Amino acid sequence: MDITDVWEELITPGGRIVYLVMDGLGGLPSESSGRTALDTAETPNLDYLARDSSCGLLEIVGPGITPGSGPGHLALFGYDPLRWRIGRGVLSALGVDFRLRPGDLAARVNFATFDDDGKVADRRAGRISTELNRKLCRKVLDALDLDFDGEVFLETESEHRAVLVLRGKGLSDELPDTDPQRTGVPPIAMKPDTESVSEPVSEAAAKSAEVLTELLRQAHAALQDESPANGMLVRGFQIYRRIPGLKQRFGLNGLCIAGYPMYRGLSRLLGMDVAESPADIEGLFQSFESHFGDDHDFYFLHVKGTDSAGEDGDIVRKVAVIEEVDRRLPRLLEAKPDVLVITGDHSTPAVMSAHSWHPVPVLLHAKYARRGAAKRFDETACLGGALSLRPGSHLLGLALGHAGRLKKFGA
Amino acid sequence: MDITDVWEELITPGGRIVYLVMDGLGGLPSESSGRTALDTAETPNLDYLARDSSCGLLEIVGPGITPGSGPGHLALFGYDPLRWRIGRGVLSALGVDFRLRPGDLAARVNFATFDDDGKVADRRAGRISTELNRKLCRKVLDALDLDFDGEVFLETESEHRAVLVLRGKGLSDELPDTDPQRTGVPPIAMKPDTESVSEPVSEAAAKSAEVLTELLRQAHAALQDESPANGMLVRGFQIYRRIPGLKQRFGLNGLCIAGYPMYRGLSRLLGMDVAESPADIEGLFQSFESHFGDDHDFYFLHVKGTDSAGEDGDIVRKVAVIEEVDRRLPRLLEAKPDVLVITGDHSTPAVMSAHSWHPVPVLLHAKYARRGAAKRFDETACLGGALSLRPGSHLLGLALGHAGRLKKFGA
Repeated sequence: MDITDVWEELITPGGRIVYLVMDGLGGLPSESSGRTALDTAETPNLDYLARDSSCGLLEIVGPGITPGSGPGHLALFGYDPLRWRIGRGVLSALGVDFRLRPGDLAARVNFATFDDDGKVADRRAGRISTELNRKLCRKVLDALDLDFDGEVFLETESEHRAVLVLRGKGLSDELPDTDPQRTGVPPIAMKPDTESVSEPVSEAAAKSAEVLTELLRQAHAALQDESPANGMLVRGFQIYRRIPGLKQRFGLNGLCIAGYPMYRGLSRLLGMDVAESPADIEGLFQSFESHFGDDHDFYFLHVKGTDSAGEDGDIVRKVAVIEEVDRRLPRLLEAKPDVLVITGDHSTPAVMSAHSWHPVPVLLHAKYARRGAAKRFDETACLGGALSLRPGSHLLGLALGHAGRLKKFGA
Repeated sequence: MDITDVWEELITPGGRIVYLVMDGLGGLPSESSGRTALDTAETPNLDYLARDSSCGLLEIVGPGITPGSGPGHLALFGYDPLRWRIGRGVLSALGVDFRLRPGDLAARVNFATFDDDGKVADRRAGRISTELNRKLCRKVLDALDLDFDGEVFLETESEHRAVLVLRGKGLSDELPDTDPQRTGVPPIAMKPDTESVSEPVSEAAAKSAEVLTELLRQAHAALQDESPANGMLVRGFQIYRRIPGLKQRFGLNGLCIAGYPMYRGLSRLLGMDVAESPADIEGLFQSFESHFGDDHDFYFLHVKGTDSAGEDGDIVRKVAVIEEVDRRLPRLLEAKPDVLVITGDHSTPAVMSAHSWHPVPVLLHAKYARRGAAKRFDETACLGGALSLRPGSHLLGLALGHAGRLKKFGA
């Protein structure tokens, strides 16, 4: 029981909510300018909105904790990520439109380059083409001959990314990542994850590890003459279990507009419809304009470029993406959603070239949003906003409340 | 399960963390100047640090709750004090280097002055000398003749303070303090603590109360001709149970540099090493300089003077202690710890001459610490800092995150 369960009790019909999530939005000052990407960007529309909105900062998962994209979004959608744990494998599978069944064991695959000693030389095999990825998946599947009473799926995601799914009885996800997350070392051995499970190791975990060890051995044999992708790394094993969606929990009929598989997969997992994949930011806004006013009442728009630029350490590009979004913002306002939220799922400071634990600016624009002292939309100004600093999983309740979707609590 | 358990899952090697805890740091404005001790003190180094750090305020235990020093420090070390309850007796025993065994029942003793009617006249017996304390402990132990199948220890702490430990089978800590915490009243009767335990009273509690009642009767008989300490008050009964330490939970190899027994005891309880006791603030900094760079990665420096001055209602002395620490601060910075935290374990406003519930200013200095609006290090300026107001038990996670010691949460 957490606060999100209380929202469930209070749900009533109400207005439309739009989430514009700029992935990895928050940042840190660059060493040269002393300013963050949000500080630097010319954002007249975001700044105008900030003055007319409740602003604040979201600590997405918890103090000091750097969110992955999955947990980051779960928090924004009202699913405390400490309670709702969804592995990379399940998210990736949903993102390639693989129709998981309860009990399936899913994992994320990287085609990777291994050196002659079997050590990881490139975790992404130079980001091979999606076309080559498809060929390698077929090659591995054709070569497999396993003592396993079930089905094996290996589906291309994009570039070096693929999804592995085992369907059969008695599988377990108490398994380690073989991906060591760095190069120059061998992959981690596939054996039951005794650090995270209670001893003795379950029969299901032992069996799953045995099947996967043999599967990886045969896959590497099949790929040994390929270059640069002569092997596979797997991570994020998870058994797929249904979770109650946004409709069931919060009465929201959601639509996801996102280009990247994982965000589409997560949205599908939460029962949202998923619009055609937009090609770019302009496509995202066009798709929104064509859908808004249909029978959805929760629109999730995802911008990936802010995070990619941050991950690449490219603050100039991050500024450019923010400015590009800012220029198109009036089109969201023209649609007159009852609640417009603009935030990120975590910070990705360009100076760190990585996700970080720093809280993310948030802006909530609605008829009855109380204004604070924020005159601009950036990390410092939002400290003075009416929402203050708060956990990421508070956000959906605030959006529901401002949309008139929560009844009074008690008499 | 709380957020600190999630940190445990994410631990990875990283940088060095230094905690400088100025006991009872927070305060309230004095009636004459309208300024707190932190406002009043000339602190160029703290103020410089504040501008270059994430600042905020820590509500150490919870809203309205005045922390004791034990719970206050537990919170700072990542042990939510509502979950990890450690009595004064156990802390005192560890502080005098008494090697508790699991199952031991420990309590804090005050040698005290009782009037002819048996009422408490001075809870500290005029702060008798440590030497006299030793003599009294021996006298009591020599006089005891109990129907108890076990051992009794009575160990001098300092001045009027001592530690009582019972070692035997079937003991309980469901016992009251006999210390009424004020004078002019008799001590509280030693009987099972029915307010805090479920009825019926356990056999262990009844037996423990019976042994202790007789023990106190015999002790008072042995001391009846002594002056000023003609009796004992006991409080903080607790059975010692091992708790997982900082190394086990958070991978931190800690070193405590503190002069007072309780802080040393608490640190030992959490598995930290404990440096030789520094004589004064200069000694504290010298000890830090001699140890920093050894194989520890978490250094806890404790300054007691801020709290003692606050307890004595002496804001002038509290200001002087803060200024003395400030002058030496550059020596901490020269060591270049990856994370430097400066805060207190609770407020001790001189106008109250007591611990209080008010949040405590905190400053976290690190490469990737996001700056806020705080231009000085005091109770008001820290309100505008990037850490905002938050629970005390958030602090260690923030320190771990900024030290690069927490892996990403989820994919």
